[in-house]
Amino acid sequence: MLKRIGIADTTFARVDMAKLAIDEIRNSGREVRVSRYTVPGIKDLPAAAKRLFDGGCDLVMALGMPGAADIDKQCANQASIGIILLQVLTGKHVIEVFVYEDEAEKKQELLRMVEERTRKHALNALRLLFNPEELTRMAGTGRRQGAADAGPLRP
Amino acid sequence: MLKRIGIADTTFARVDMAKLAIDEIRNSGREVRVSRYTVPGIKDLPAAAKRLFDGGCDLVMALGMPGAADIDKQCANQASIGIILLQVLTGKHVIEVFVYEDEAEKKQELLRMVEERTRKHALNALRLLFNPEELTRMAGTGRRQGAADAGPLRP
Amino acid sequence: MLKRIGIADTTFARVDMAKLAIDEIRNSGREVRVSRYTVPGIKDLPAAAKRLFDGGCDLVMALGMPGAADIDKQCANQASIGIILLQVLTGKHVIEVFVYEDEAEKKQELLRMVEERTRKHALNALRLLFNPEELTRMAGTGRRQGAADAGPLRP
Amino acid sequence: MLKRIGIADTTFARVDMAKLAIDEIRNSGREVRVSRYTVPGIKDLPAAAKRLFDGGCDLVMALGMPGAADIDKQCANQASIGIILLQVLTGKHVIEVFVYEDEAEKKQELLRMVEERTRKHALNALRLLFNPEELTRMAGTGRRQGAADAGPLRP
Amino acid sequence: MLKRIGIADTTFARVDMAKLAIDEIRNSGREVRVSRYTVPGIKDLPAAAKRLFDGGCDLVMALGMPGAADIDKQCANQASIGIILLQVLTGKHVIEVFVYEDEAEKKQELLRMVEERTRKHALNALRLLFNPEELTRMAGTGRRQGAADAGPLRP
Repeated sequence: MLKRIGIADTTFARVDMAKLAIDEIRNSGREVRVSRYTVPGIKDLPAAAKRLFDGGCDLVMALGMPGAADIDKQCANQASIGIILLQVLTGKHVIEVFVYEDEAEKKQELLRMVEERTRKHALNALRLLFNPEELTRMAGTGRRQGAADAGPLRP
Repeated sequence: MLKRIGIADTTFARVDMAKLAIDEIRNSGREVRVSRYTVPGIKDLPAAAKRLFDGGCDLVMALGMPGAADIDKQCANQASIGIILLQVLTGKHVIEVFVYEDEAEKKQELLRMVEERTRKHALNALRLLFNPEELTRMAGTGRRQGAADAGPLRP
Repeated sequence: MLKRIGIADTTFARVDMAKLAIDEIRNSGREVRVSRYTVPGIKDLPAAAKRLFDGGCDLVMALGMPGAADIDKQCANQASIGIILLQVLTGKHVIEVFVYEDEAEKKQELLRMVEERTRKHALNALRLLFNPEELTRMAGTGRRQGAADAGPLRP
Repeated sequence: MLKRIGIADTTFARVDMAKLAIDEIRNSGREVRVSRYTVPGIKDLPAAAKRLFDGGCDLVMALGMPGAADIDKQCANQASIGIILLQVLTGKHVIEVFVYEDEAEKKQELLRMVEERTRKHALNALRLLFNPEELTRMAGTGRRQGAADAGPLRP
Repeated sequence: MLKRIGIADTTFARVDMAKLAIDEIRNSGREVRVSRYTVPGIKDLPAAAKRLFDGGCDLVMALGMPGAADIDKQCANQASIGIILLQVLTGKHVIEVFVYEDEAEKKQELLRMVEERTRKHALNALRLLFNPEELTRMAGTGRRQGAADAGPLRP
């Protein structure tokens, strides 16, 4: 069955994260229609996600790159609370992909992290929609996005 | 089609931010009807925005200048959470334009920042209503309001 | 038209703030019916405000004096979030008048601050109900309650 | 008129707070039916309170003893936000009686504090239901629960 | 009567917590149908729980292992607020079982803690559904999950 994924992204981010997510979705070969909605900053993402759901999306990816200052983290927290509230009210997933500017020291490392986290979460979004039992097979195995998997804790 | 933008502002702010926003909207030449609603402080902005939506506005700009103390930042956080909640419930955008009193050391710099952030976000509000594809063209390019654009991260 | 203002106050506060607010409202000569509702502490104010709205109030003043400890500030934050949520859901204003016990060093100064903040916000409540354009004339002029006005920032 | 008070308590607490509250309610001679609902920890109290309201309670007391660690305080904050949200949605009071394990240094002092705070808030609950004007007579007089009253600030 | 318990878990966790919970439920001999739903991380748990309730579950266990960094704790806080909000809206319990990576220094200790907390909370979930009076018998006795019981405070 045709599914619709909404991609909400920002002009604030310094990487075209939506392009990465859409590329990964396209490469999957899944029958997905993508709706993209760009807003100024991460605090506008909850409204964007709500509008994408109202427009018929089954799942939304919310993509953003918060700054490194304390106030930026407070903003990200507010955005995340809105995104979680929306999910509680709708029962639909919003996969949040946030990369903080201070998560990596070097530009190349940050770029790599943004790409990997976005692509891996695009795959997670597809699993939630088409193949949830695959996630259950991966449960408790310490998966990470944007860094090496931590792996399972073994006795 | 005629759109309505609500402008919620405060008597606490030390600059007439609404005047700047309205001026930018007028200069755009877009067919917009503006409704202005002034409240005492930023914590009154969520109710103001709700009332502006109930009065028929398609989008609201919420303008404020929180103080520099910790308690002021806590108040701003509460106001922002209310504003995000309102967006989640209505699916309409509230463009929050907050300038903290300690974002600039000198008065002239703060004034410049207030003006630039307010005007740039007024343009963002217009884009969301009339020209969303323009925001998508700007996606991931590190846009800032009140400071120089950070620009895109390049490999 | 007759308006109804709800006054929610606490037994925790060390000043009869409601008396000050009611006095200011009475002195205004406006046709206002006042409903008073006293609760134990500030965390009970959101429920009190909701009940006052359910009883027909057009606007509520929520009066409280949080203590100086960290946990008191956390409680005040919770109360404020509830108060803001109520406003988002109802579209009615709750004018929050909180005075923290550590805002002034001396008792006389604290008393003066409580009185001035409460009275000034009672006037703000009346303006919101009867004379909103007066608030717009005051917009961006750095008004304060409980301290001297900061005044407008001038170039 | 017969009123129903719900008592939500936890297995985490180290004192049978519900017993104290029920004892105080019984001693009052008021016609009250008490419904008790015990949950594992304080984060389960919002759901318990909601269920007690759904079962017909007019007011709920939420009793708990959060630990002293930072994470315990974060949990208490989450529980309190849920409890306040429930009150905003229902317009019914939830009297929260939380005693933090680090509020007293000695065991005897903590026990005394738990008992006094619980009993005094049980009386507050009864006042809210049967005798709200008594609370108004006590307004602004610096009442405390679990410590000596602060008393009114006098000029 | 047949009850349904939803088990929401994550691929981020480093232990298969759901397996432990399901094992404990199976061992109880209670007539319970279990629905399992795995998501990428803890911030996806509120949506998972909502979907499990929409699918007919009477109670949900939300299992996760947040990391040790500040941002991980902020994420856990957001997830918990969503989980509490869901309970306030539905009146159904979500038993949250979170184990922070820094709660134990050694791997073996962390594994033991995860197992004990998960199994004990599975028993709590069963008590809430089938035997709530057992929880009331345990009230105020200082029960812990993942550590030794603190026991009741005695005079």
